[in-house]
Amino acid sequence: MKEKLRLLIDDNSTPQGKMFDYAIQFLIIASLIAFAVETLPNNEPEVTAFLYVFEVFCVAIFTTEYLLRILIAKKPLKYIFSFYGIIDLFAILPFYLTKAFDLRALRAFRIFRIFRALKLIRYNKAMQRIHIAARLMKEEIVLFLIITGIFTYLTSCGIYFFENEAQPMVFSSIFHSLWWAIVTLTTVGYGDVYPITMGGKIFTFFVLIIGVGIVTVPAGLVSSAVSKAREIQEDREDTEVSLEN
Amino acid sequence: MKEKLRLLIDDNSTPQGKMFDYAIQFLIIASLIAFAVETLPNNEPEVTAFLYVFEVFCVAIFTTEYLLRILIAKKPLKYIFSFYGIIDLFAILPFYLTKAFDLRALRAFRIFRIFRALKLIRYNKAMQRIHIAARLMKEEIVLFLIITGIFTYLTSCGIYFFENEAQPMVFSSIFHSLWWAIVTLTTVGYGDVYPITMGGKIFTFFVLIIGVGIVTVPAGLVSSAVSKAREIQEDREDTEVSLEN
Amino acid sequence: MKEKLRLLIDDNSTPQGKMFDYAIQFLIIASLIAFAVETLPNNEPEVTAFLYVFEVFCVAIFTTEYLLRILIAKKPLKYIFSFYGIIDLFAILPFYLTKAFDLRALRAFRIFRIFRALKLIRYNKAMQRIHIAARLMKEEIVLFLIITGIFTYLTSCGIYFFENEAQPMVFSSIFHSLWWAIVTLTTVGYGDVYPITMGGKIFTFFVLIIGVGIVTVPAGLVSSAVSKAREIQEDREDTEVSLEN
Amino acid sequence: MKEKLRLLIDDNSTPQGKMFDYAIQFLIIASLIAFAVETLPNNEPEVTAFLYVFEVFCVAIFTTEYLLRILIAKKPLKYIFSFYGIIDLFAILPFYLTKAFDLRALRAFRIFRIFRALKLIRYNKAMQRIHIAARLMKEEIVLFLIITGIFTYLTSCGIYFFENEAQPMVFSSIFHSLWWAIVTLTTVGYGDVYPITMGGKIFTFFVLIIGVGIVTVPAGLVSSAVSKAREIQEDREDTEVSLEN
Repeated sequence: MKEKLRLLIDDNSTPQGKMFDYAIQFLIIASLIAFAVETLPNNEPEVTAFLYVFEVFCVAIFTTEYLLRILIAKKPLKYIFSFYGIIDLFAILPFYLTKAFDLRALRAFRIFRIFRALKLIRYNKAMQRIHIAARLMKEEIVLFLIITGIFTYLTSCGIYFFENEAQPMVFSSIFHSLWWAIVTLTTVGYGDVYPITMGGKIFTFFVLIIGVGIVTVPAGLVSSAVSKAREIQEDREDTEVSLEN
Repeated sequence: MKEKLRLLIDDNSTPQGKMFDYAIQFLIIASLIAFAVETLPNNEPEVTAFLYVFEVFCVAIFTTEYLLRILIAKKPLKYIFSFYGIIDLFAILPFYLTKAFDLRALRAFRIFRIFRALKLIRYNKAMQRIHIAARLMKEEIVLFLIITGIFTYLTSCGIYFFENEAQPMVFSSIFHSLWWAIVTLTTVGYGDVYPITMGGKIFTFFVLIIGVGIVTVPAGLVSSAVSKAREIQEDREDTEVSLEN
Repeated sequence: MKEKLRLLIDDNSTPQGKMFDYAIQFLIIASLIAFAVETLPNNEPEVTAFLYVFEVFCVAIFTTEYLLRILIAKKPLKYIFSFYGIIDLFAILPFYLTKAFDLRALRAFRIFRIFRALKLIRYNKAMQRIHIAARLMKEEIVLFLIITGIFTYLTSCGIYFFENEAQPMVFSSIFHSLWWAIVTLTTVGYGDVYPITMGGKIFTFFVLIIGVGIVTVPAGLVSSAVSKAREIQEDREDTEVSLEN
Repeated sequence: MKEKLRLLIDDNSTPQGKMFDYAIQFLIIASLIAFAVETLPNNEPEVTAFLYVFEVFCVAIFTTEYLLRILIAKKPLKYIFSFYGIIDLFAILPFYLTKAFDLRALRAFRIFRIFRALKLIRYNKAMQRIHIAARLMKEEIVLFLIITGIFTYLTSCGIYFFENEAQPMVFSSIFHSLWWAIVTLTTVGYGDVYPITMGGKIFTFFVLIIGVGIVTVPAGLVSSAVSKAREIQEDREDTEVSLEN
């Protein structure tokens, strides 16, 4: 009995296992959309009522699934404190913690379960490659974050110095200038805050010339790391093949 | 006779075939521009009349071409249901389906025929390389879309939580917040919607730091995949060369 | 005498040649800045007078240089109709063609002469690598431009269909929508034009998801081509070295 | 005694050395935040007083550290005129130069000391790789800056020509147009300045098509250079290993 359940829930190589996975994933996405619909202003009372029923239904299914997963786990405690175990708990906890409205957004984390489906063989390799690539560029990413952090801070100080007098309401402190700095350096540029003094514009001019270079660095790191990861994977496979022969 | 037509229409390695191809391509682009001109407000009646005549002319040519292609095809049904066959039909169908105005935009699909010209030997290799690259990164793109989807959803929930009270007309639901999220994460930043609360700005700050990294991932994947595709192509050629010797 | 002049003007490996090159480059940049200063509104009459004198001075020097280059050229006609010869002529022609005000902007092309300085050995390799890379990705760039062109046109038609009724002054034709499309797809997002209808926003949502992918493709192509070019260069050098031994 | 101090301050492989490093880094970040808090408008007198005390405390520590570093240095003069020595001095100098308010922003440079912590073995390699990559792409970056500079200048001249008449207050000179050019070409697009004439929009259309290609070039260069640097590092290690055997 327990073994059958395990096949259904844990093993996604069998047709039933896949079906179960797809059903849960479909329910997760549906409940995410329902959560978004709930936030719409001027909902009809019928809609609100239906959404509540659907919510109860989802939580019931997710709770059953959670309990079943504990039941079939060889080491229940290990599952409970695993990454997925905690996510599964967080997906249902908010409902039980009364009407803790916004916490329900945490259900979105449940969507990470989609990766379970990805554990199928054909996706295994891409996941693994991204894992290798992430490790390869870990040190560069840390360096990049430190340099970007310093650069953003200095940019904020600079623009505060140039614009504070002309626009005291907008660049009222370095923290306010930080908002401008991040919106500019990521090239989002909402247009709610921008320099108007000659000095501020010239400063921004040079900041942008350097900033564009900085923003493109992660693309370069990712590209280089993924290429390397691909190579490493191929080497491993070659080694395995030559060991088998 | 049929064979001659085939040489004219299908074979673009002969001078006549090339000429025919260029003529059709020119007509496609001209009819696309004509369609755009038609939408201009305050067109003179003479212009409208000319555009109508040109439209009839284009459809007449395209219909003739479509019928000829069916005629010369060795397996007419195969052509009719092929990718290009359907596009060729869609390019003329709207005209016959009376004044179905906006459907005429579908004519744009006819421009895909330009790729026929690209079938010339010198473009063959680039197409093939892109094909190999696309296959190489398929799994990573799927993973990327899932992660980006989750990230965008969570971002929308977060900003809704922070800004809904302060700007109830702008961030009136998670769907409305989704508009902000996509405009921000792609760094378009129209400036029609942006956070104004302290919490919303700090939240956006961290979202952007991660978001920029995410947006650059496809560039890295494309770069890595194109490099690999180039290698694969060269290996194949080397193999062919060594087989020939 | 002529040989001495040639050493001065053409040969930038000698100290005098380098000095001459730097002087001309400095004058080009100075005249570009002078041109920009001239456009400032409310210039003092003294400034305008000084700028005019400086302009005459620059043209005199550039004309002398141009004539000297013709004089020392082994094949004067070849120089006159070469890329640099035409640029040198265009840099002085506008002045002589009376007060053809805006044509003076063409002087900017003179700055291309800076590349002459780059002909020094240490820059030779980078130039050559970019040349190889450009040739390697020529076909992909053409494909990319065609796909982007089609995508931009279809996007314009789509947004026209969704937004024309709601904003008839902004999206008044497909040409006007094209402005929105290019500003959005390049992620500039001025904020002067954006969709306001539900349909237009959902359409933009999907366009952006695909658009970001498309915009990052050139980065990938450049990266892949530069890497490959570097390899090709190294192979060549290895071959040369092994030939010498 | 001196040797013990050296172990504490200079050597970050021992537990005490690490602790000292972390303490200094923490103090740097704290003083940077304090500096930003100081700029907030409407600070309570108590906060201002506390910030002043904290400032004095930080400067005292940093001065002690600076003097100790001179004391323990084998060649004190070499340290004083080294990169870090100058930064260490600049971090405390502004305080002593009376209330030179804005100069205190220079303290941000002290954060560069974080790199000292990075000198730990595990970060050594990433630093070195970035160093190699930077050298590999130096020539291309110079070329890129020259081409971008020319392109930006020509773009400014062009938009000035098209828009000056229609928006004389915004595009009042080429310098003003340069602001638009940099904000557009980096795809920031604040929306404070944009073309409104037909000619200006068509010009911008073509500038953006080329501009996007140009902006992505650095990503490609970084990616290619980092990949190459990784290879070079591996080759070196292989050589070292084979030399040891």
